[in-house]
Amino acid sequence: MEKWRLTYRLLKHSSNFDRRLTSGHRYLFGRTFIPFKENFRTLECPSRSYVNGASVSFARVNGNSYAVQHRYLASVASTTQRNPDFSKITSDDITYFKKILGERGVVQDEEKLDDANTDWMRKHKGSSKLMLQPRTTKEVSQILKYCNSRCLAVVPQGGNTGLVGGSVPVFDEVIINVGSMNNILSFDKVSGILVCEAGCILENLISFLDNQGFIMPLDLGAKGSCQIGGNVSTNAGGLRLIRYGSLHGSVLGLEAVLANGTVLDMLGTLRKDNTGYDLKHLFIGCEGSLGIVTKVSILTPPKLSSVNLAFLACEDYASCQKLLLEAKRKLGEILSAFEFLDVNALNLVLKHLDGLRDPLPSSVHNFYVLIETTGSMESHDKEKLEAFLLQSMNSGIITDGVLAQDINQTSSFWRIREGIPEALMKAGAVYKYDLSVPPEKMYELVEEMRARLGSAANVVAYGHLGDGNLHLNISAPQYTDGLLSKIEPFVYEWTSKHRGSISAEHGLGLMKADKIHYSKSPETVLLMAAIKKLLDPNRILNPYKVLPPSILSQS
Amino acid sequence: MEKWRLTYRLLKHSSNFDRRLTSGHRYLFGRTFIPFKENFRTLECPSRSYVNGASVSFARVNGNSYAVQHRYLASVASTTQRNPDFSKITSDDITYFKKILGERGVVQDEEKLDDANTDWMRKHKGSSKLMLQPRTTKEVSQILKYCNSRCLAVVPQGGNTGLVGGSVPVFDEVIINVGSMNNILSFDKVSGILVCEAGCILENLISFLDNQGFIMPLDLGAKGSCQIGGNVSTNAGGLRLIRYGSLHGSVLGLEAVLANGTVLDMLGTLRKDNTGYDLKHLFIGCEGSLGIVTKVSILTPPKLSSVNLAFLACEDYASCQKLLLEAKRKLGEILSAFEFLDVNALNLVLKHLDGLRDPLPSSVHNFYVLIETTGSMESHDKEKLEAFLLQSMNSGIITDGVLAQDINQTSSFWRIREGIPEALMKAGAVYKYDLSVPPEKMYELVEEMRARLGSAANVVAYGHLGDGNLHLNISAPQYTDGLLSKIEPFVYEWTSKHRGSISAEHGLGLMKADKIHYSKSPETVLLMAAIKKLLDPNRILNPYKVLPPSILSQS
Repeated sequence: MEKWRLTYRLLKHSSNFDRRLTSGHRYLFGRTFIPFKENFRTLECPSRSYVNGASVSFARVNGNSYAVQHRYLASVASTTQRNPDFSKITSDDITYFKKILGERGVVQDEEKLDDANTDWMRKHKGSSKLMLQPRTTKEVSQILKYCNSRCLAVVPQGGNTGLVGGSVPVFDEVIINVGSMNNILSFDKVSGILVCEAGCILENLISFLDNQGFIMPLDLGAKGSCQIGGNVSTNAGGLRLIRYGSLHGSVLGLEAVLANGTVLDMLGTLRKDNTGYDLKHLFIGCEGSLGIVTKVSILTPPKLSSVNLAFLACEDYASCQKLLLEAKRKLGEILSAFEFLDVNALNLVLKHLDGLRDPLPSSVHNFYVLIETTGSMESHDKEKLEAFLLQSMNSGIITDGVLAQDINQTSSFWRIREGIPEALMKAGAVYKYDLSVPPEKMYELVEEMRARLGSAANVVAYGHLGDGNLHLNISAPQYTDGLLSKIEPFVYEWTSKHRGSISAEHGLGLMKADKIHYSKSPETVLLMAAIKKLLDPNRILNPYKVLPPSILSQS
Repeated sequence: MEKWRLTYRLLKHSSNFDRRLTSGHRYLFGRTFIPFKENFRTLECPSRSYVNGASVSFARVNGNSYAVQHRYLASVASTTQRNPDFSKITSDDITYFKKILGERGVVQDEEKLDDANTDWMRKHKGSSKLMLQPRTTKEVSQILKYCNSRCLAVVPQGGNTGLVGGSVPVFDEVIINVGSMNNILSFDKVSGILVCEAGCILENLISFLDNQGFIMPLDLGAKGSCQIGGNVSTNAGGLRLIRYGSLHGSVLGLEAVLANGTVLDMLGTLRKDNTGYDLKHLFIGCEGSLGIVTKVSILTPPKLSSVNLAFLACEDYASCQKLLLEAKRKLGEILSAFEFLDVNALNLVLKHLDGLRDPLPSSVHNFYVLIETTGSMESHDKEKLEAFLLQSMNSGIITDGVLAQDINQTSSFWRIREGIPEALMKAGAVYKYDLSVPPEKMYELVEEMRARLGSAANVVAYGHLGDGNLHLNISAPQYTDGLLSKIEPFVYEWTSKHRGSISAEHGLGLMKADKIHYSKSPETVLLMAAIKKLLDPNRILNPYKVLPPSILSQS
């Protein structure tokens, strides 16, 4: 019988949640800044279905409010077989690594390894006995060349903030952590092009650019820990995508090391270069399975001074779509966020979070939209937004709306949108899906799900409407196999039928490698596998991830 | 001895050049709307060096002004060997193709083949005896599957407007023209996502979107002929790149057919999809050498109502860079073009083009910059631009400037920038280079070139400063081997040394396949070759292009 370990911990509860940590990208966690080792308790449970979910309850202990956060750690060996082709680490290997990296770059300390073996969700745990910390591209190359010749599997690791089990070992893979490669190499203030090493922490880059009058084209909840190499390797999305697009557009160049140690210098700093295949795109979003990104060149936008936020109400989903259309036209160049939530989401927030009130209390509406603008002149942006709101009211697209007048109101509006995950956790069990769906179909899924589940669950929808990214959440008193079977595989099949994506921005990692067929055609998956085999014939790079191992073992 | 054919023709000259046709992307051609067959004359000449140049002179015949445009057609067989592995067309092949495509889809007519064999520059000419015109993806797949099994080489062709000999046969390759696949498949007015077949002409898509209140994220001089499949396959740049980025950002999905007939359905319409490797990027810019793009899904921006244009003067190149920095910050979200020209370029235009006058006549300046803004509210944009100009004047970054007050002034300012190629043609022989160079280094190349050439030539510089794309033009009384040897390979070596690109937006095609090493590292080129071999083991797709054949023949 398969066995699963349920790990739960007591988290001191505070309403002063970090804005980023409770945003859509981090909603499973609540507070994560409490040390991982604190208050962990583990028990075994028999059902695999729990692995797909998590429950949170709250309790008062010694007068303090605590969240009891449950996590299920899969007993991995029961689902995935270690590839027997991979060698096991020997003392000779350690000697070699110490020779090229020095003592400092070879980590065998159990406590450190425990952290590096465990993913941020504490859902996946490997058993690596070795973490290497190279400081240069040459060292990464030497490591990989050696591992490839020895058939030692490796896991590239940056900030280890991934959400799909992609950045931790499954078995005893060697962890290659690039966090020591954290130098900013150049910044050009005219072009806004930044070149840096892969281990630079996103927040450090943001701070550096802020002093130069620029911003990063991406911003994430995990910015305090995640590294640019990991961002690029996972094609991280985040909060600025609607305005600045994906990393396939803003990353101008890369340096990457292949499995055999070959260093690919594609570190161009040019906006235009049509000389052959643009191979850097293979490494953007490959989750470290085709090579290890060691340096990044990225186009950064200038920092603009004016930011405004409106909280609006629509009576139906069609109006939300019309509003998006109008916002794109009337606010066009200053539009920087377009988020929506349904009334179920708002009600949940108002019920479960303290200190929040309905910004539009005069009546209940079916849908709410937050529109943020960012521009270079405050008076212009305000005027545009006010004219847009007036017109949208007059035309009936919105039925009510308010423009944040100060920083407090701005925070409070954002808190509603970003507090949804926290409210969902407080409400009970929650099944969470992060889907890309064509915007015109997005809410159909929500309605179909409601019809399927009836009164058994509260189906809550919100997300980045401007990007077609739906956060579908199903809130129930508790996790049950019966409820799960009504949700899955239906939700994946529906997404697939409408040509959506079962992973909008988190990647496939270990968790969804076997679900790739829901979003990619068989021919495309086969070509991916062929490219994987071409670049990494021994399959040492981040094994068991991204592609189903069964596809790779086909010759 | 190598032989080269010089082809020249009389073109009726008119000062009413089409704005687009004379823009930087089309500067070699002057008027192209005169039928290609008109007034061609050919002579043989012994020197290969002429192939890199073109000369134009003007004459008055019967009271009309004519441009005599010279083109050099390479005697291709003398430089490239036909791959002996390729089969030759048989009557059985024709029978098969007629069976799957019908009579209409199989073109053997000599006149039609002559057009399809000849590139737009009339610099390259193949000798294909067969053009196929599929109407569906299935037909493309059947064609390729058959050609692959028979080892028949093919050339994918769209509008045949490429500038590097990429879209015409070198020998007897079968031409696969996708122009009959020209249906718009869907358009979503909320997301702005357009899905269409590869053969849609860019201008038709622009017109279609205009009615919907949207624009294409790219605009090219060749828009009346070029097709979206070709645009994607060559990663076309164009006029809107500074604002909307490259096709790697705006193309959301593709359908492509591999050499063996496999149809890759990657036709997603999602802004976010992190489920495996994003393989569509392999086909964006592969110039048809990895597969034939049959359908495209593309994100289109909303059409905005306000457009403004300023013509400014700077005393040094450093000020041009400062101005770009300030424009990005102060005009940020409305900036839609940032073009520069040096005083040599302005003087040339004023000397050779009729009806143009210096917009800033009070004194002579070293550099001129055109700044275009596009936004959603006229009054705001004007106010921003005026404030920006005033500030730039006060700080001394610009020494003079004028804001176009009406459509006539706008046209006249653009005519100066876009008339440079025409003026260069009138001035005599011209050596032209389309380079990407880091903006801070861009003008160093111009100055070094001036120092090298001395009084032998007039070195003229202009281009898309905002994109780091320099049009370096060397104007001389006539083409000489001596002058050429001072320019090349220096210009490529300099570009390579500064990590620039020897082809900013035109691709490599046949012309620059053997120059790829100037812009790409050996390891990267080897990986490109490996991917080419993986996807097209018989190398039937667009042979002799993009990669040096010598690399591909290495096993």
